[in-house]
Amino acid sequence: MKLSERLKKDSEKIWEKIYVHPFVKRLFEGSLPERKFRFYILQDYNYLVSSIRNFSILAARAKSEKVMKELIDIAYIEARGEFEGYKNFLEKMNLTIEDAENQKQIQTGISYTGFLLSTSSLKSFEEGITAALPCYWSYAEIANFHRKKIPGNKNELYKKWAYYYLENDYLDLVNKIKKIVDEIESDFPYDKLKHVFITSSKYEYMFWDSVYNEKV
Amino acid sequence: MKLSERLKKDSEKIWEKIYVHPFVKRLFEGSLPERKFRFYILQDYNYLVSSIRNFSILAARAKSEKVMKELIDIAYIEARGEFEGYKNFLEKMNLTIEDAENQKQIQTGISYTGFLLSTSSLKSFEEGITAALPCYWSYAEIANFHRKKIPGNKNELYKKWAYYYLENDYLDLVNKIKKIVDEIESDFPYDKLKHVFITSSKYEYMFWDSVYNEKV
Amino acid sequence: MKLSERLKKDSEKIWEKIYVHPFVKRLFEGSLPERKFRFYILQDYNYLVSSIRNFSILAARAKSEKVMKELIDIAYIEARGEFEGYKNFLEKMNLTIEDAENQKQIQTGISYTGFLLSTSSLKSFEEGITAALPCYWSYAEIANFHRKKIPGNKNELYKKWAYYYLENDYLDLVNKIKKIVDEIESDFPYDKLKHVFITSSKYEYMFWDSVYNEKV
Amino acid sequence: MKLSERLKKDSEKIWEKIYVHPFVKRLFEGSLPERKFRFYILQDYNYLVSSIRNFSILAARAKSEKVMKELIDIAYIEARGEFEGYKNFLEKMNLTIEDAENQKQIQTGISYTGFLLSTSSLKSFEEGITAALPCYWSYAEIANFHRKKIPGNKNELYKKWAYYYLENDYLDLVNKIKKIVDEIESDFPYDKLKHVFITSSKYEYMFWDSVYNEKV
Repeated sequence: MKLSERLKKDSEKIWEKIYVHPFVKRLFEGSLPERKFRFYILQDYNYLVSSIRNFSILAARAKSEKVMKELIDIAYIEARGEFEGYKNFLEKMNLTIEDAENQKQIQTGISYTGFLLSTSSLKSFEEGITAALPCYWSYAEIANFHRKKIPGNKNELYKKWAYYYLENDYLDLVNKIKKIVDEIESDFPYDKLKHVFITSSKYEYMFWDSVYNEKV
Repeated sequence: MKLSERLKKDSEKIWEKIYVHPFVKRLFEGSLPERKFRFYILQDYNYLVSSIRNFSILAARAKSEKVMKELIDIAYIEARGEFEGYKNFLEKMNLTIEDAENQKQIQTGISYTGFLLSTSSLKSFEEGITAALPCYWSYAEIANFHRKKIPGNKNELYKKWAYYYLENDYLDLVNKIKKIVDEIESDFPYDKLKHVFITSSKYEYMFWDSVYNEKV
Repeated sequence: MKLSERLKKDSEKIWEKIYVHPFVKRLFEGSLPERKFRFYILQDYNYLVSSIRNFSILAARAKSEKVMKELIDIAYIEARGEFEGYKNFLEKMNLTIEDAENQKQIQTGISYTGFLLSTSSLKSFEEGITAALPCYWSYAEIANFHRKKIPGNKNELYKKWAYYYLENDYLDLVNKIKKIVDEIESDFPYDKLKHVFITSSKYEYMFWDSVYNEKV
Repeated sequence: MKLSERLKKDSEKIWEKIYVHPFVKRLFEGSLPERKFRFYILQDYNYLVSSIRNFSILAARAKSEKVMKELIDIAYIEARGEFEGYKNFLEKMNLTIEDAENQKQIQTGISYTGFLLSTSSLKSFEEGITAALPCYWSYAEIANFHRKKIPGNKNELYKKWAYYYLENDYLDLVNKIKKIVDEIESDFPYDKLKHVFITSSKYEYMFWDSVYNEKV
């Protein structure tokens, strides 16, 4: 079994809770109040900024030039691609990038990004990249889990949002990150990787929960 | 008004909630179940380790040699002084340093220390040292707030714990940290300092709450 | 006067020595032994890798999202653009990327990149980006200084190399870095910026001198 | 053979050159011009400051609490012990700590400390601590190599300086660092450790040479 698959298997209880969290479920079903979605988008924009910073640190600390370049690619795709997508979303909700930038990060967002950034800055490269995976991968899995609900979703915004995580471009990005994790040398202590993977998975759940409850 | 006083004033709502949190109140009154205290001590040990790492990063990034040496002193006092105190506490509860080291950090602990370490590693030195202050200072304020309850506390362990934070040695440590904050140049954007001070204050509250509820 | 111009003016003695260093002069005149150029290219490849890591750290530490994205762009252009150019050069000299990767860095290269990376990691963002400027800017100035010699250069490889630093794409890159420096707030202590700018300028001179003398 | 011994053996050519460098030789013989010694002391003070910062970063990144505490001890001994010794030396040469702080670092000093700090910040902990060893260890070896010359040294300052590196306190410090290196796990790639050990050894030689030639 690939390392990434083993990590996911060891976190499956949390991932299964994520798939059926009311925010996620109602988003795919189209019944989520738009106010909550709006709150989420503004917070997720802030997460994305920190996530790009995180990939930048990992690029700086990558052991080979090949992996360094792969991480620069990931940071660039995120900074140019996903950001542009966000600008579109924000516009459709009558929000601007400035609104997003001025939005105060919720405590759960500060916690999650603090964990990612401190891991990448101070621990090993291997732990850093492993901690970054659950976010990107779980979005693809969530979209796949609820795939059949999307065509019937009455909210055009939610529909568009959902389809993004099924597109090849997005899956390519996930695979790029997964590949770097799968290349971690087999003698690296598995427990350390499992710890950061599970910790990030918990933060994913907490993030959905915090935005659903609009918890500052 | 000194910068530290201004920051404390701007966080007073959270600090007042901390003073009267059931964990804190019952600890000073002697009515806290020992199981909860035990849980707290093991978690606080883990916090302390990260806190020493945090002061080390700040020492490395201090602008002057004087401040660098002050921070090495703080890290050393913590690593040698407070740690030794912990060893005593642990022994009295039939626990060892190994128990503490093997204890898994609660998510709130991971969040708080991730915030501190990522701030000190990536943001300005000024934000880093300001984020480190609420923990140390609030313990002194808590002990002072409940000062009159200590003599009547029936639990010898709690009594000993409480008196530690009223001792001159501890107050000196707090003053050392406060002094570095008070020396931040006056043109440094206050909003950034306030943001990290309040964020740490919130984590202090969350930490007490998590250990009271033994929330993993 | 713009900050970048002031910094360059305060380093002009070193820059003038760079313009007329025998390696530089003979490269533009076409009289440089190819062995020395080969040695340079392999070393410069290694410098470039560290330089991209350096821009990545700066991206992670940028104060605004705007500047973070600008730095991700710079790292990406370098990782994809200039690298591809190098691959071409190496091929023409019957060298491979693997040759470049396996090449041991000269001590001056270790010194220069250690200075850049430690500044960006531990000092202020402002000092980090200022230290990164002399390399990119001086190449444009060198090419401009020797501009008239290029058409008559008999060595096709040197000609191609030289023209690259006069192209708009390259000048755009230099301007992107210069712009970030010029946006440093005016109350930032000039002496600190001057110190890192001059230090990097000295390393530029030392680098040309080390490769000319093939000094390991 | 212990890892540290193997590293030293693989660097013996450089170490042997250090032992007999004119600065070193003349210092132990008492024939070194005091102006050169003065220049050295002011530069070495600056090195020491960066070295303490370096041990602080390593403390922050240590894998176990035990090693973290050992590194805090080392930083503290350096910050309080060796610094105090310097103050004495400076006084005897009619210099103050302020003179030392205001002294501009020579380029070789910037290079050496940039290498140490960037290695400790961005590479593995193992490479960081290995790079820190040659400085401390080589001073003990130098003093031992020239041990017989010390009693006859006519310069009281040089004599005092030389005896410091034969004292148990100093040798304890060296052994503390050596022990952390010797505990590196045996599957850590030796080549990486050798590379940083040799690079630092070269910087040691360059440092003696730069101060001997008062090369700014």
